[in-house]
Amino acid sequence: MPNRDNKDLDMNQKSLIFPDGQTQNIPYIHKIGVPPKPNLLKEFKTIVKETFFPEDPLLSFKDQPKSRKFFLGLQAIFPILEWGRSYNINKFRGDLVAGLTIASLCIPQDIGYSGLAYMKPQYGLYSSVVPPLVYAFMGTSRDIVIGPVSVVSLLLGTLVRREFDPNTDEYLRLIFTATFFAGVTQATLGVLRLGFLIDFLSHAAVVGFMGGAAICIALQQLKGFLGISPIHFTKETNIISVLKSVFKSAHNGWINWQTIVIGASFLAFLLVAKYIGKKNKKLFWVPAIAPLISVILSTFFVYITHADDEGVAIVGKIDKRINPPSIDKIYFSGENLVKGIRIGIEAGMIALTEAVAIGRTFASMKDYKVDGNKEMVALGTMNVVGSMTSCYVATGSFSRSAVNYMAGCHTAVSNIVMSIVVLLSIKFLTPFLHYTPNAIISSIIISAVIGLIDIDAAVLIWKIDKFDFVACMGAFLGVIFKSVETGLLVAVVISFAKILLQVTRPRTAILGKIPMSGVYRNIEQYPEASKIPGVLIVRVDSAVYFSNSNYIKERILRWLTEEEENDDLQATKIHFLIVELSPVTDIDMSGIHAFEELYQNLQKKDVQLVLANPGQQVLDKLYASGFPDLIGENKIFLTVADAVHTCSPNLNHEV
Amino acid sequence: MPNRDNKDLDMNQKSLIFPDGQTQNIPYIHKIGVPPKPNLLKEFKTIVKETFFPEDPLLSFKDQPKSRKFFLGLQAIFPILEWGRSYNINKFRGDLVAGLTIASLCIPQDIGYSGLAYMKPQYGLYSSVVPPLVYAFMGTSRDIVIGPVSVVSLLLGTLVRREFDPNTDEYLRLIFTATFFAGVTQATLGVLRLGFLIDFLSHAAVVGFMGGAAICIALQQLKGFLGISPIHFTKETNIISVLKSVFKSAHNGWINWQTIVIGASFLAFLLVAKYIGKKNKKLFWVPAIAPLISVILSTFFVYITHADDEGVAIVGKIDKRINPPSIDKIYFSGENLVKGIRIGIEAGMIALTEAVAIGRTFASMKDYKVDGNKEMVALGTMNVVGSMTSCYVATGSFSRSAVNYMAGCHTAVSNIVMSIVVLLSIKFLTPFLHYTPNAIISSIIISAVIGLIDIDAAVLIWKIDKFDFVACMGAFLGVIFKSVETGLLVAVVISFAKILLQVTRPRTAILGKIPMSGVYRNIEQYPEASKIPGVLIVRVDSAVYFSNSNYIKERILRWLTEEEENDDLQATKIHFLIVELSPVTDIDMSGIHAFEELYQNLQKKDVQLVLANPGQQVLDKLYASGFPDLIGENKIFLTVADAVHTCSPNLNHEV
Repeated sequence: MPNRDNKDLDMNQKSLIFPDGQTQNIPYIHKIGVPPKPNLLKEFKTIVKETFFPEDPLLSFKDQPKSRKFFLGLQAIFPILEWGRSYNINKFRGDLVAGLTIASLCIPQDIGYSGLAYMKPQYGLYSSVVPPLVYAFMGTSRDIVIGPVSVVSLLLGTLVRREFDPNTDEYLRLIFTATFFAGVTQATLGVLRLGFLIDFLSHAAVVGFMGGAAICIALQQLKGFLGISPIHFTKETNIISVLKSVFKSAHNGWINWQTIVIGASFLAFLLVAKYIGKKNKKLFWVPAIAPLISVILSTFFVYITHADDEGVAIVGKIDKRINPPSIDKIYFSGENLVKGIRIGIEAGMIALTEAVAIGRTFASMKDYKVDGNKEMVALGTMNVVGSMTSCYVATGSFSRSAVNYMAGCHTAVSNIVMSIVVLLSIKFLTPFLHYTPNAIISSIIISAVIGLIDIDAAVLIWKIDKFDFVACMGAFLGVIFKSVETGLLVAVVISFAKILLQVTRPRTAILGKIPMSGVYRNIEQYPEASKIPGVLIVRVDSAVYFSNSNYIKERILRWLTEEEENDDLQATKIHFLIVELSPVTDIDMSGIHAFEELYQNLQKKDVQLVLANPGQQVLDKLYASGFPDLIGENKIFLTVADAVHTCSPNLNHEV
Repeated sequence: MPNRDNKDLDMNQKSLIFPDGQTQNIPYIHKIGVPPKPNLLKEFKTIVKETFFPEDPLLSFKDQPKSRKFFLGLQAIFPILEWGRSYNINKFRGDLVAGLTIASLCIPQDIGYSGLAYMKPQYGLYSSVVPPLVYAFMGTSRDIVIGPVSVVSLLLGTLVRREFDPNTDEYLRLIFTATFFAGVTQATLGVLRLGFLIDFLSHAAVVGFMGGAAICIALQQLKGFLGISPIHFTKETNIISVLKSVFKSAHNGWINWQTIVIGASFLAFLLVAKYIGKKNKKLFWVPAIAPLISVILSTFFVYITHADDEGVAIVGKIDKRINPPSIDKIYFSGENLVKGIRIGIEAGMIALTEAVAIGRTFASMKDYKVDGNKEMVALGTMNVVGSMTSCYVATGSFSRSAVNYMAGCHTAVSNIVMSIVVLLSIKFLTPFLHYTPNAIISSIIISAVIGLIDIDAAVLIWKIDKFDFVACMGAFLGVIFKSVETGLLVAVVISFAKILLQVTRPRTAILGKIPMSGVYRNIEQYPEASKIPGVLIVRVDSAVYFSNSNYIKERILRWLTEEEENDDLQATKIHFLIVELSPVTDIDMSGIHAFEELYQNLQKKDVQLVLANPGQQVLDKLYASGFPDLIGENKIFLTVADAVHTCSPNLNHEV
């Protein structure tokens, strides 16, 4: 890139610049760049674009004929039209194997998860038929597996059970209503391009929340695992209620030992299979089909031994109908509508968070892009359609997506395969599932949710950021000691508090000169950096806003006082206060006021205020407010080094 | 400050460094400073100290004997013990003149403000007796004048009138209850050192809110100014209701023309006096005593002409008792307690905002310090004491403080003088105020609140930051079209949204080399800066948190794509992506994850990820997470220039 001024500059270059800060010659000082007056409309457009359309969705529509635009529009809604055209038999082979594997995994899981939501087993299976089909046409992730998941089932069950008894028709109707509005919420967020809202749940909070939810889910499984009848089991999800109810059952002999034996032996089998899969990635299929094997073996065992007559609880009759319509069951008026909307929004947001996290994880492993807003529209549509076909809230499942990925899926076709297999199973396999013991379903879920407890991540969070760890533990403890909702609330509040604290009390640092360079850095980080006598250089590490402007002003003045007291013995008076503004990305009215006050305070102390490297935003606003005229335009420099050179040419910089 | 390594460095210095970026020799590359493992406890203590004790209140207590510590403690609570010892007759002369001036101003204002709060005139006067006395002993501002103020009176009147009719005893009791809890709120914030919470109301929001409130207050005065009876006047404060009610009154002939004549002529007199004071700062006493003169003249006029028989409303009888005890009137139980707490918190926060703003303004003009937390304790205590002695919420008044300052006050003794004068007035002057026309009080208030409408500030806000302007107008329109509360809510919500938006969608910039320097800056701000072929330098302008980590990753990748497409013709492949981290003040788990994903994405594209100048916090956390091992420790540099030199020694940097 040719530079106009290059020739002129080249000539005086070598004679003038001395990098080591020696001041025989004052070096060439580059003028700060005063940007052109910003165009309001352009600025506004940029903000809107970066906030809502960061990925520039209309780029491909540019300069295309109308018919092509229509097809591109269709493609935008149904990405299958795009990737479907390059689909081939090779890819299908991978998808078929993956689809069959995840189907074998999802059938027992679905039965268990519907139990978590206090629903009959078929509803879990229904939710693995319609939503995955819809997703396959509209989604952009190639690896995600759609269906009911444990955390959302638990949340939905907890919230809806507060309103109605699980055995009533109202319970089921409210579930479908909530599912409908969960879908509407998700699709709306996508259409309005508000997908970034889910970014406000921090990674740490999610780790804590998931871990807590996993423990709650495992605790709920004690009911099936120990053979305790639902009437003797608590309706709460928190650890204290559950353990109390378990001990009470044990004390009163409401526990069935045959159930425990069956459950424990198959749990051991599942955990061993999991361990094998973890040790040898090639044997991923061992933990993937272990649940199906457990189901087959235990069902056969119960059928032969008539263990159900001994009190071993079994799944029982499953409705053989395929996804009956349920649109007439959704509440579209009355107070149940309000409840449905409230529960739907909560469940929809959690489901969204999980699905987006999964989508991103696998997309970054295979290096393709998932489109956050399109994903939301796809997930929303599938839940709206699901709510009309007897499904409850479905989303991406962590464990099944990992299996799908390892089994070599190529596209969302594996979801279609799974959907068909589950559909056939409902029609033809449910009679066989009649004798499946509940304890096996519980064992399968326990072994599945263990993977959600990510102790390594928690340890890493502790190492990296203590505040994040507090958020993590807050969410975790909130979930296990109170409720899923409480944990979520705690996590969100702590996450926000962290942002606000950062904005209120930003860090500041004293800079010194790194030897043999013109670079000034934090003297705490670089102990070898040396201060310049008579000059105090302070860096402000944040945008200066109303929430921190006063603190920043006070802190800078305090640095000055501390410095003057420290240097008391040497009696070096500070003449220049250089504020390094590189990290100051923005400033507002209150911030400019604070700098004006700082200037006035410094004037009284006979100290010159000098600014170094203000960014474009900051410079715009400083000029708009007339601040450079106040302190003198020649008091603003491109770098700290320029400022030091000009301020104190007679000082020896290499002390 | 001697530097250990100095001698070694000095020798190879000149032979190695070439500042202009010529690469005959690779310049000396300073190692990045890996800070020592942070001490958790120390880190925690630093955060707590900077958040809650930024001004180091215990500094003076250090190494003092016990008796001295006790006295210092007393001084901390009652600053009068500190400044009182250097008090002298010269200072008193200034304080006496100032005190008499503000007393003459506050008496008519107090009567008017109590009307805004729908209370009898004496309560406004009471509130100028006890709170200023308490403040004088405990406050740290030397210029603030304590008493009832217009905005708080309006707010209190609006909120309490929603609960009870102003003529009932419950109304008065709820006012005192709210005052008590306003004081408790203020003192608690001070004791818990949570003073920074009021920083969350941005300057722009305050400008809008004050302007809106001033218009509402002026509109309320139309009642007295036009002589409309309270029964014909609306109870709402919004502009539409008030104008409707004024037109209806005009239409039905409920307006008294004599009142208008008196009011208008004295309003003209007051505005002229104000103008004179503004033109010539030495004549500040003209607007200061104009209200008292108006009161005396108009009262005399009404007394002589018996204008009150013609329908000119007058102040009437004022209770001559001095501050009767009211502790038995405060609700300490029942649902009125809850109402009192809620209203008290709101009124207390607004009062606090105003007082702290005034305190800071004058302190910075005279270059002394107000201690925010001590101020809150002082304001809180005075309101608690006030609520027990028939006062309602008092705080610092802008107009009276300005007069106090200009009249040459030295210390809070001017508040004591004012308090004594007001007390004597209650005892001896109230009979004379009997005939004061309400229209004069209204005129005085109108001329006082006009100063709260700061159009210049609004224009400046528009110039500087459009988003701030939205917050300003939101507060303004919310107050005048809906209610004081709505305006406040709008302002707070917009202020928060701004912070969150900034945190969610931070700016990024492409850097180029400034000619004749080793400095890299935003190419948009410095069009002369040139890009380095094969290298893309991106600066991230914000801490990287969960709320923006994903956006930042995507944005950096998008810069890369755009760059490669732009340079298509020249076919320069990007080999190095340098991320300049100077403005990145902090990072969390999600942020590190995002950088890991970025690294993986870049690996696939065969681009090297290089980091420049990570700060201490960021480096700590990167090391804790093992990120430097992932990308290679030699990929982290002190400056962008170092990174460029090392990455591409064979590229010509001066293109």
